[in-house]
Amino acid sequence: MANKLTPMSKDFNEWYTDIVKLAELADHSPVKGSMVIRPYGYKLWEEIKEYLDKRFKETGHENAYFPLLIPNSFIQKEADHIEGFSPELAMVTHGGGKELEEPLVIRPTSETIINYMYSKWINSYRDLPILINQWANVLRWEMRTRLFLRTSEFLWQEGHTAHATKKEANEEALQMLDIYHEFVEDIAAVSVVKGIKSENEKFAGAITTYSIETMMQDYKALQAGTSHELGQNFSKAFDIKFSDKNNQMQYPYQTSWGVSTRLIGMIIMAHGDDKGLKLPPRIAPIQVVIIPINQAQDKNSDINKLCDTLVEHELKDIRCHLDSREEVTPGFKFNDWEQKGVPIRIEIGPKDIEKGVVTIIRRDTSEKSTIQTNKISETVTQMLEDIQKNLLQQSKSFMQENSFHVENMDELVDSLQNKDGFYSCYWNENTKDELLVKEKTKATLRCYPLDANNTGKAVNDVKVEGKLAIFSKAY
Amino acid sequence: MANKLTPMSKDFNEWYTDIVKLAELADHSPVKGSMVIRPYGYKLWEEIKEYLDKRFKETGHENAYFPLLIPNSFIQKEADHIEGFSPELAMVTHGGGKELEEPLVIRPTSETIINYMYSKWINSYRDLPILINQWANVLRWEMRTRLFLRTSEFLWQEGHTAHATKKEANEEALQMLDIYHEFVEDIAAVSVVKGIKSENEKFAGAITTYSIETMMQDYKALQAGTSHELGQNFSKAFDIKFSDKNNQMQYPYQTSWGVSTRLIGMIIMAHGDDKGLKLPPRIAPIQVVIIPINQAQDKNSDINKLCDTLVEHELKDIRCHLDSREEVTPGFKFNDWEQKGVPIRIEIGPKDIEKGVVTIIRRDTSEKSTIQTNKISETVTQMLEDIQKNLLQQSKSFMQENSFHVENMDELVDSLQNKDGFYSCYWNENTKDELLVKEKTKATLRCYPLDANNTGKAVNDVKVEGKLAIFSKAY
Repeated sequence: MANKLTPMSKDFNEWYTDIVKLAELADHSPVKGSMVIRPYGYKLWEEIKEYLDKRFKETGHENAYFPLLIPNSFIQKEADHIEGFSPELAMVTHGGGKELEEPLVIRPTSETIINYMYSKWINSYRDLPILINQWANVLRWEMRTRLFLRTSEFLWQEGHTAHATKKEANEEALQMLDIYHEFVEDIAAVSVVKGIKSENEKFAGAITTYSIETMMQDYKALQAGTSHELGQNFSKAFDIKFSDKNNQMQYPYQTSWGVSTRLIGMIIMAHGDDKGLKLPPRIAPIQVVIIPINQAQDKNSDINKLCDTLVEHELKDIRCHLDSREEVTPGFKFNDWEQKGVPIRIEIGPKDIEKGVVTIIRRDTSEKSTIQTNKISETVTQMLEDIQKNLLQQSKSFMQENSFHVENMDELVDSLQNKDGFYSCYWNENTKDELLVKEKTKATLRCYPLDANNTGKAVNDVKVEGKLAIFSKAY
Repeated sequence: MANKLTPMSKDFNEWYTDIVKLAELADHSPVKGSMVIRPYGYKLWEEIKEYLDKRFKETGHENAYFPLLIPNSFIQKEADHIEGFSPELAMVTHGGGKELEEPLVIRPTSETIINYMYSKWINSYRDLPILINQWANVLRWEMRTRLFLRTSEFLWQEGHTAHATKKEANEEALQMLDIYHEFVEDIAAVSVVKGIKSENEKFAGAITTYSIETMMQDYKALQAGTSHELGQNFSKAFDIKFSDKNNQMQYPYQTSWGVSTRLIGMIIMAHGDDKGLKLPPRIAPIQVVIIPINQAQDKNSDINKLCDTLVEHELKDIRCHLDSREEVTPGFKFNDWEQKGVPIRIEIGPKDIEKGVVTIIRRDTSEKSTIQTNKISETVTQMLEDIQKNLLQQSKSFMQENSFHVENMDELVDSLQNKDGFYSCYWNENTKDELLVKEKTKATLRCYPLDANNTGKAVNDVKVEGKLAIFSKAY
């Protein structure tokens, strides 16, 4: 059974696309820019949704659904917003066989349509805060498809909130960033830097964009989620007003925040290896796969009985799959489930049965061990926890080992040109300099880390104190 | 507190729209034909999704996601399909600032794009059956909006399966119809007739369409779900072929099946009354609302303590909401939660506390009773079951009382012109006659009931035996 997976070291991009295809996560579609999310990939999205949806509800948010099609004039209402999104819009010009009077835009994000509705729903301070989330598809025109990472249509959630005060909106934006952080580290086992986007990189329409940045195994950054303080930009553009406790009319302060199916791309690129996908147990659709090593004639053997007992009893609280396919060899199955990133494989052969043991293999370390049959449940439970911890630890070490501090502009540019990674420096916010670095190195200012209070001589202007900033190439 | 709800007897359509607005289920959107599903309405959709998704998975289906935009040429591939959907298509002609070479269609349903992908994924009998479901938004151009019932964009699920044999496909289509039936009767508490659609009313591209038909309180039918046997129509149009066990190339047999957000409209129109929505307990986002009847100064009273104990302990396994708003009167709250259809209301006043009782009111019968505080949990649990049963029983009786059998064509037409309801008769399948009845009465052939094996002289051709058919006006 040949492994058709391109080695990561040979070509990271091909390796990535191979995994997506071989693990049956997604497929290219006949519509340029669009992808098909296959059942195994969609299960990852369902795990992501389930976790986040629960956390959103625990923090007081409700789900709702707003229209896919937005009048083109709405997009025009917030100046930065239109500038940011215009080049990416898909236009519906004909409906029901007729040309439309005003073209409709397929939502690239829903601030405009949602805030139009908020202007009708918000009248008094008693209507605030309004805490709504939407799980939806959005579309931003894109011809260079990379499955999960860059597609015209993608699935995401977008939270949209309105608050009486700036302080409350700020707390909300940071709370949601923390929930994303918690998901990415605790569940997806990927190390995170939390930070603030530069003026140049912030969301079109925000006053502040917070993001979580992660590092992929090719040392590039992937922005895993963003949370925006919108200030009163949209409430003014859409004339959302409420009477406060003193009967004065006020514009509310707003936030929006989102993560998308690109989180699946992150999981692949943060953990995978030359055997395929490597899934953190907490998000793996299948946590344990059991493979009987049978003789063809062994249909009702002790091996099959043990397999059934494991699935129905010992491992019933674990997402467990018994691979009893007869048309393929055990070797094919090993390869198949390794590609699909299942954290633990249990092999049961005739000799194991004789000795009252099973063979257990960790996907993360390839470690193989022999376990007493009566110890399977506790061993598997403990091992799943160990794998989860180990993957996060590896991601943390990897980020640490590939993060560097530079002291001046030359060093920043040279480093970014020669070796990919995260480069921190003190930076005096300045879009022109930022674009210059980008032009020379293709790297962008990823964020000003939130927990870094220290300042120092700015590399782009030694006369002033700069804030700590991280530069990197990015997805 | 004036009740702004139009009485059902005065104008059923206005009554319906009023409930949707007053209960904050949905709102009109600025885009003609589109609606906004508000949080309380979306919670109903979440309950529907949760139940059905579980049942789909229990019966071996997996979720996936296919593109929103479909090449116009795909829609043209299946002759009946294009005829059925062409007038309802929304066309994307521009993307990323440029005119597209081929217009893209926003999916009105996904048979074409999904079957294109199936042609790539299906090669051998080992790839079958393929059992995929998608939760998605679809769009069918529509200018006369009725919230939940008729909107351009709506949310739904669409199952798409492929099988080696016609028998298997038939079993699948009927199995999914049974799951819809089970949901509508057991959870939504609405009486159902299962049947087969006439040639004229079947899905564009199906060989057989099965449906479940329900009766609204204005005696009109609402088709609550459909399940289609597609035969080999799409597998031939998209050249989906598999090699069978004898290495012969075969076209698979397919099904598709769906329900949509119109189920919410069904729940409203089947159960509501002049006080508002009436929700079956199994689908109610809030099953019990607790309303303290406090004096303003009573902030830390025994009343509040009892309320908290109920929510946190006695009723913790029930979807319970404590309405502790201070800015509105208890009377406002009664009205508000009645409009929102909450099955049980518990009122707790100072006199109740003295006597160690609470007052409990059923939304379905308006019955009021006084319950010992220590009996609340068992009483509520039992009452929720009773309400669920009662609503289904009422729906069954209502359908029975408004279903009639007619013996000849004149009687059929006269009845349909004079009194809305379900009219059964023996019918010789004939689209021309069906359209004639429709022209005269606006009623359509809803279905040939599945459990009716009896035949008799056809009203549209007394010389032949007809099958039992039901005619009715419909949503």
